[in-house]
Amino acid sequence: MRYVLSGVSQEAFLQPPAEEQAFLAPFERYRRGLQTALRQAVPSDGDRLDALVRYQMGWEDEKGQPVEDASCQGKALRPTFCLLVCEALGGDWERALPAAAALELVHNFSLVHDDIQDGDTERRHRPTLWYLWGRPRALVAGDALLAHAARSLERLADSGSSSETQLRASALLSLRCLEMIEGQYIDISYESRLDIGESEYVEMVSQKTGALLRCSGEMGALLAGASGESVGAMGRCGHSLGIAFQVRDDILGIWGDTATTGKAARNDIWRKKKSFPVAYALEHATGTARRELRRIYSKPELGARDVELALSILEDIGARERSQVLAEERASDALATLAQVEMSHWGRDAIEAMVYFLVHREY
Amino acid sequence: MRYVLSGVSQEAFLQPPAEEQAFLAPFERYRRGLQTALRQAVPSDGDRLDALVRYQMGWEDEKGQPVEDASCQGKALRPTFCLLVCEALGGDWERALPAAAALELVHNFSLVHDDIQDGDTERRHRPTLWYLWGRPRALVAGDALLAHAARSLERLADSGSSSETQLRASALLSLRCLEMIEGQYIDISYESRLDIGESEYVEMVSQKTGALLRCSGEMGALLAGASGESVGAMGRCGHSLGIAFQVRDDILGIWGDTATTGKAARNDIWRKKKSFPVAYALEHATGTARRELRRIYSKPELGARDVELALSILEDIGARERSQVLAEERASDALATLAQVEMSHWGRDAIEAMVYFLVHREY
Repeated sequence: MRYVLSGVSQEAFLQPPAEEQAFLAPFERYRRGLQTALRQAVPSDGDRLDALVRYQMGWEDEKGQPVEDASCQGKALRPTFCLLVCEALGGDWERALPAAAALELVHNFSLVHDDIQDGDTERRHRPTLWYLWGRPRALVAGDALLAHAARSLERLADSGSSSETQLRASALLSLRCLEMIEGQYIDISYESRLDIGESEYVEMVSQKTGALLRCSGEMGALLAGASGESVGAMGRCGHSLGIAFQVRDDILGIWGDTATTGKAARNDIWRKKKSFPVAYALEHATGTARRELRRIYSKPELGARDVELALSILEDIGARERSQVLAEERASDALATLAQVEMSHWGRDAIEAMVYFLVHREY
Repeated sequence: MRYVLSGVSQEAFLQPPAEEQAFLAPFERYRRGLQTALRQAVPSDGDRLDALVRYQMGWEDEKGQPVEDASCQGKALRPTFCLLVCEALGGDWERALPAAAALELVHNFSLVHDDIQDGDTERRHRPTLWYLWGRPRALVAGDALLAHAARSLERLADSGSSSETQLRASALLSLRCLEMIEGQYIDISYESRLDIGESEYVEMVSQKTGALLRCSGEMGALLAGASGESVGAMGRCGHSLGIAFQVRDDILGIWGDTATTGKAARNDIWRKKKSFPVAYALEHATGTARRELRRIYSKPELGARDVELALSILEDIGARERSQVLAEERASDALATLAQVEMSHWGRDAIEAMVYFLVHREY
């Protein structure tokens, strides 16, 4: 399978696959194992705090009743990428499950704290944790998710990883987690600024989203027993994929369909989020459009007319198209890095399909 | 040196030492090494988030200028106890410094998030982090402190600890950290309840304060190369010490002197904190006193008359004296456990002096 993405000249790129099924296969393949590992990582010992954790993980509703609909469990992108990389490089993916679970727990930790900071009331088609339980309890539940992640890595010993591998995995998780946290800080610091352009955006998102996907690639390769060189390359692949994924997320955050994304329409404009389309427009708009956009993004709160005007400025300047080009460029970088690493044909095809899926998805 | 504490019948107990100096010696002994380890654990790479971390650690003021006054660095109880246990059990305390630094970073993580949750505006004679930088940034800075703590443990390798010891230290820190977080959750859940008595209080504080001091004792023994039995005993010693310390803290939170504690007078009454004296009074007060106390603690905010009335109810029922008895009982438990572990005379004397100091301190 070789696909070509629009607007991208890199040779490593790909033809669209015959069916969407090809993208989704790894998610389905690892889903049950991952859920088992996650539930092992978050023991149900009747602790009161666990109810919040189980809600956040999409296992229970706010009354503690089991949830059947898996859509509130999220995409599980980070652990799936980790397990796929592990298997593609010849590893036993089941041995990597504790690491995959740790990545998903760290991701959920970041979501819980993000939602508190941004005041977001809905995620994955449900009320956010703080909105149901209040900020103090949600803050603590986020902290617990991070502690559970560290504890999950301890289970690598049970599946036969050496002490050295465990320590290396633990060090990678801490380092990338810290980078992610720093990215979150940069994101907050952008809220009050108007001088955010493409390069500032990429600096932020490299850390906020790129760091944990880098870690996913690194962990997968590490637990496949790959060389340090391959671990680094799969980390860079994940990092580029992370940026591509986030830029596509930014597109969906403005132009996505509520029914499929689980977020309000034009959500990121209402929230004055300095996502890529907005950063691009703030940097490149001129004349009246520039003045209007800066005026709108200086207001404490936006009205419906502000949102419509901002949206038309973004569309006039081609922010949507430029965003998609950036997403595809970074996807292309991910594939170019992938090409440097030896792996099975099956694995390479599956990773390429995942990359393609992530920059074209509608949810 | 053998001291006797008032109101305590346990035989293991102690005579007051000749000078306060004896209590403070270990804090002074390890201070420089600990500060060096902490600064290594939080590298100054010019990152914007680091400014908040350095403020919280008491190294800089809010403008990034170095702070000379060490009082805003806190007591460093947890790392000092860890290093003292390590040395008392025959270990090289300098090898335990990365673990000691990790304990102090975890403690500071918990303080930053606590202050956000409680809305406290002052700590260690200075404005709290969230009060200066806002809640979203402070929340992220707290997260960063936890990530720095995990990374600090990686340095145990540099000082010659085996991979197994590193993994054991890391597992202890994650487990106790999770217990501490669960304790914090219980504390929040008590805010809206009036049925909090002695046993509920002890359950909460066992985790919120006891867990990290347990970890300090365990880490110190582990890094001294002690047996699993001694690691467990020093953990139990730290755990009892933690409860004793917290109950004394609760006394100071109501009856302490602002100039020495760095907190507002009667602070914990104003904040309606379910600290031990209040839990004791809520359980044991009868008649009018009980009705008044429950009325006051049902109000959303207290006035000056409420605070005075609550205080007089606490004093009438002997809550202050009962609190000191509990602190001393738990200190006595700590000493009884200490007696089971083989260690140097010097070390035992120093730990006993520390225990005595912590339940009699005025700050």
